[in-house]
Amino acid sequence: MNGAEALTRTLADRGVQVCFANPGTSELHIVEALGADGRIRGVLCLFEGAVTGAADGYGRMTGRPAAALLHLGPGLANGLANLHNARRARTPLVTLIGDHATYHKRFDAPLESDIDALAGTVSGWVRRTQRSADAAPDAAEAVAAAMAPPGGIATLIVPADVSWSEVSLSGRAATDITATDITTVTARRPAAVPEDVIASAARTLRAEPGCAILLGGPALRRPGLLAAGRIAAATGARLLSEAFPARRERGAGIPAAERLAYLPEMASAQLAGTRHLILAGARVPVTFFAYPGVASSLVPEGCQVHPLAEAGDDACLALTSLAELVATADPAATIDPAATGDPAGSGGSAAQPPRTVPEHDTPLTADSAAAVIGALLPEGAIVCDEANTCGYWLEGATVGAPPHDWLTLTGGAIGQGLPLAIGAAIACPDRGVIALEADGSAMYTISALWTHAREQLDITTVIFSNRGYAILGLEVQRLGLKESAPDLLGLTRPDLDFTALAAGMGVPASRAGTSRELAAQFRRALAEPGPHLIEAML
Amino acid sequence: MNGAEALTRTLADRGVQVCFANPGTSELHIVEALGADGRIRGVLCLFEGAVTGAADGYGRMTGRPAAALLHLGPGLANGLANLHNARRARTPLVTLIGDHATYHKRFDAPLESDIDALAGTVSGWVRRTQRSADAAPDAAEAVAAAMAPPGGIATLIVPADVSWSEVSLSGRAATDITATDITTVTARRPAAVPEDVIASAARTLRAEPGCAILLGGPALRRPGLLAAGRIAAATGARLLSEAFPARRERGAGIPAAERLAYLPEMASAQLAGTRHLILAGARVPVTFFAYPGVASSLVPEGCQVHPLAEAGDDACLALTSLAELVATADPAATIDPAATGDPAGSGGSAAQPPRTVPEHDTPLTADSAAAVIGALLPEGAIVCDEANTCGYWLEGATVGAPPHDWLTLTGGAIGQGLPLAIGAAIACPDRGVIALEADGSAMYTISALWTHAREQLDITTVIFSNRGYAILGLEVQRLGLKESAPDLLGLTRPDLDFTALAAGMGVPASRAGTSRELAAQFRRALAEPGPHLIEAML
Repeated sequence: MNGAEALTRTLADRGVQVCFANPGTSELHIVEALGADGRIRGVLCLFEGAVTGAADGYGRMTGRPAAALLHLGPGLANGLANLHNARRARTPLVTLIGDHATYHKRFDAPLESDIDALAGTVSGWVRRTQRSADAAPDAAEAVAAAMAPPGGIATLIVPADVSWSEVSLSGRAATDITATDITTVTARRPAAVPEDVIASAARTLRAEPGCAILLGGPALRRPGLLAAGRIAAATGARLLSEAFPARRERGAGIPAAERLAYLPEMASAQLAGTRHLILAGARVPVTFFAYPGVASSLVPEGCQVHPLAEAGDDACLALTSLAELVATADPAATIDPAATGDPAGSGGSAAQPPRTVPEHDTPLTADSAAAVIGALLPEGAIVCDEANTCGYWLEGATVGAPPHDWLTLTGGAIGQGLPLAIGAAIACPDRGVIALEADGSAMYTISALWTHAREQLDITTVIFSNRGYAILGLEVQRLGLKESAPDLLGLTRPDLDFTALAAGMGVPASRAGTSRELAAQFRRALAEPGPHLIEAML
Repeated sequence: MNGAEALTRTLADRGVQVCFANPGTSELHIVEALGADGRIRGVLCLFEGAVTGAADGYGRMTGRPAAALLHLGPGLANGLANLHNARRARTPLVTLIGDHATYHKRFDAPLESDIDALAGTVSGWVRRTQRSADAAPDAAEAVAAAMAPPGGIATLIVPADVSWSEVSLSGRAATDITATDITTVTARRPAAVPEDVIASAARTLRAEPGCAILLGGPALRRPGLLAAGRIAAATGARLLSEAFPARRERGAGIPAAERLAYLPEMASAQLAGTRHLILAGARVPVTFFAYPGVASSLVPEGCQVHPLAEAGDDACLALTSLAELVATADPAATIDPAATGDPAGSGGSAAQPPRTVPEHDTPLTADSAAAVIGALLPEGAIVCDEANTCGYWLEGATVGAPPHDWLTLTGGAIGQGLPLAIGAAIACPDRGVIALEADGSAMYTISALWTHAREQLDITTVIFSNRGYAILGLEVQRLGLKESAPDLLGLTRPDLDFTALAAGMGVPASRAGTSRELAAQFRRALAEPGPHLIEAML
């Protein structure tokens, strides 16, 4: 057994089931071991940004350790932007980097670079395996580190000679290694929030006006939202969602939490009047960017912040305990049907909108496209939302849709959506995945479509084609600039043809110019197995 | 004048003429300043990997400071792989990174990351501008650092509030800053090699058998090659080229230097018998990867290495001085016509091959495709070579072509070719640029084609479509592996259609299945202005 085999075997033993990969020469022994072991499914992407985004989507949807296999420093560099998003999402993700052989590094061959420095920018745990005997225990520790609450990126750098050398364990059989050398690695669980912290929050909620609970991370999953709904019903506290959740359960029967907006003036309006902000799995809200004369913190003046559950704490348990203290009624009775779906703040309406496709056929706008998608969103859908400026209307348009998951651009590094959909679809093969993509962002990792086709994933991609970096046009206005270099902000000259790009990678595609065309094409895409792309011409 | 304006003005004053960019919100004041100043041409690419590759190509072909404008840490991360190649190429390149406002960083907003750590992996010089008054002098120093021999990457991190704040210089007019505050930055020149080093090399060349001169960096430009040719003619020394030159002048009338091969066994064969290896702008040759039982150094046992000119030294001047010492004849007479073009070692033939398209129409192979390209390569062509495994035959097939430049994958980070061609074409609008691309590598930065179309660049892209990561198939064999996970190495299922991809980005495209089809399409592409893509089906 060589180091690569010991590594692979340990990963499989520890629950790794899929490895997204774009390998090179220094990873070939690991590739070989993956094939020989047979328990880990290898999924090829044609660019590392797709590899890491796919691993992020997989980890968000399974909670199991996702794995990404990358080639040396440049391969890791190409994957960093989506690892940045995964870090913000607190996705459990093991990144495996093949490196030059230990003795080769000092020769500074062309691909030599500082992998450790790159890895350190996104990883909570970085290790360089020094000898093949360490491959198995290091792999086990990597999985444990990635899975340690709240979840994070563990990067294991594996020199080629560590991979190809036989494991030697001072007399013991190499085949025993996973049983004997790894027992010290134990899984950690989320930390329980101390009772006095929960009791203090209960006192505040009972006694004070202007309470809001800002939910984030695991608190935005169904159990957390159900508990939060009970608290809200009993105390009148408002429920808010962090602006960019990793995974948010929504839809009929799930208490709604109003998602904080991207723009600081909108988010400030949402938070206005809040005197006590209880943080459940969320961080103190801040503006996405800085602007001249605008405060970075979104906490209103005079508002007191109460951290209830921080990253790594069991936020759902804390909310459930808190609900027990403040809500006496039958839990089921406290889910106010009128409170499900999303309220007004993010562009929607507090009342449930009709779940029907608008009758009038209209030219597509971000608004009318969102209405069609909202009306047709199927139960169990996993929405990978990188619609950016076009996403403003989606929040409201999907109120009252059947239960679904909503994954967002946690770290703001664009090029996430198409890869994320790969991972979500592989994680949940029985559910439909819907990638809602801004055109500019889609081009960052467009080659992900090839993996959609290769793996025949049930992904419906809708490109919101407005032929510009619309967010920048918006920011230019907000900053009072003149846009004197418009060529650097527009996607025209030539226009992109996403149907041709999709066809070039084996994904059936169509173009919609009106709401009726979009509805027909979206229905068909949902009904047929395999990937589809619809270019919505706004 | 704000910091962004001071920065932009200084860059333009110091010779920056083009800025390749993919900006975001934190760079908008710089974008505005670029537009207002008007002297620096902004070129938009749809992904940062294309931005940095384009800047590399521009810097290699002009020797002037190239500039790349990137958005925060993730934008830099996306550009790192091609910055890695640029670092290996020693390209003079100023990287501008917009960062969050200084006061915003501590809030750890979604896009916050360790930009300095990322920049450090590729840059010889990194600075974070602290106040708007420093923007101009920091920009001047960045240009000076990038241009300091042998050339390198200088990264300037510009917080948003530095960009938008007015420049204040304790009473002096802000408009004076470029004249008054930057005078301490003086351009450096390549260092002259000491006379005794040159004299020692001359003694070795005159007295010892088995001498070879390994040329690299600036020594592979025409003046260096002409001097080296005189030395070779006078002393019998062999001329070799480093394996992955940034820019190599070749063709009729230019003395040939045999390019070291990628595979260690081939490179070892090329170097066998060498007893004195004189390094002129090249580093000690090493293998690209490590392999079990294969030495990393390619220097034959018993061979003595003589560093004549190192990075930053004036290698051309050293070779010219050396030629004066060892070659007494008229310089022009020593250019042996039979020695021009490339000799056998790299797959070519020592004799000049015929410059005609092969008469028989044959199915395309890497070999027959190379023969067509070699026969039709126009004078002054700039070849961006990322053909990888298919490139083996190109070296020989282009022997004896009219003078041209050959740019290679200096750092081994694939995804370079299509972006590099952007920069080369913008640097040299009167010359034809030919991008020779492996299919797998092309997919890494495929969106570069959109910039080919937008800027209507004279680039002819030939995709060598063999539907696999052929290099990995080769390495699997060499390593004695079984390829038990072939799905991770092949580009089939589905096949890519590069003509559709090109059409989706506005580049006219065609597909060639035979040598005659390739010849006809290649001729047409060269004759017509603007970009073209030919998918060569191997």
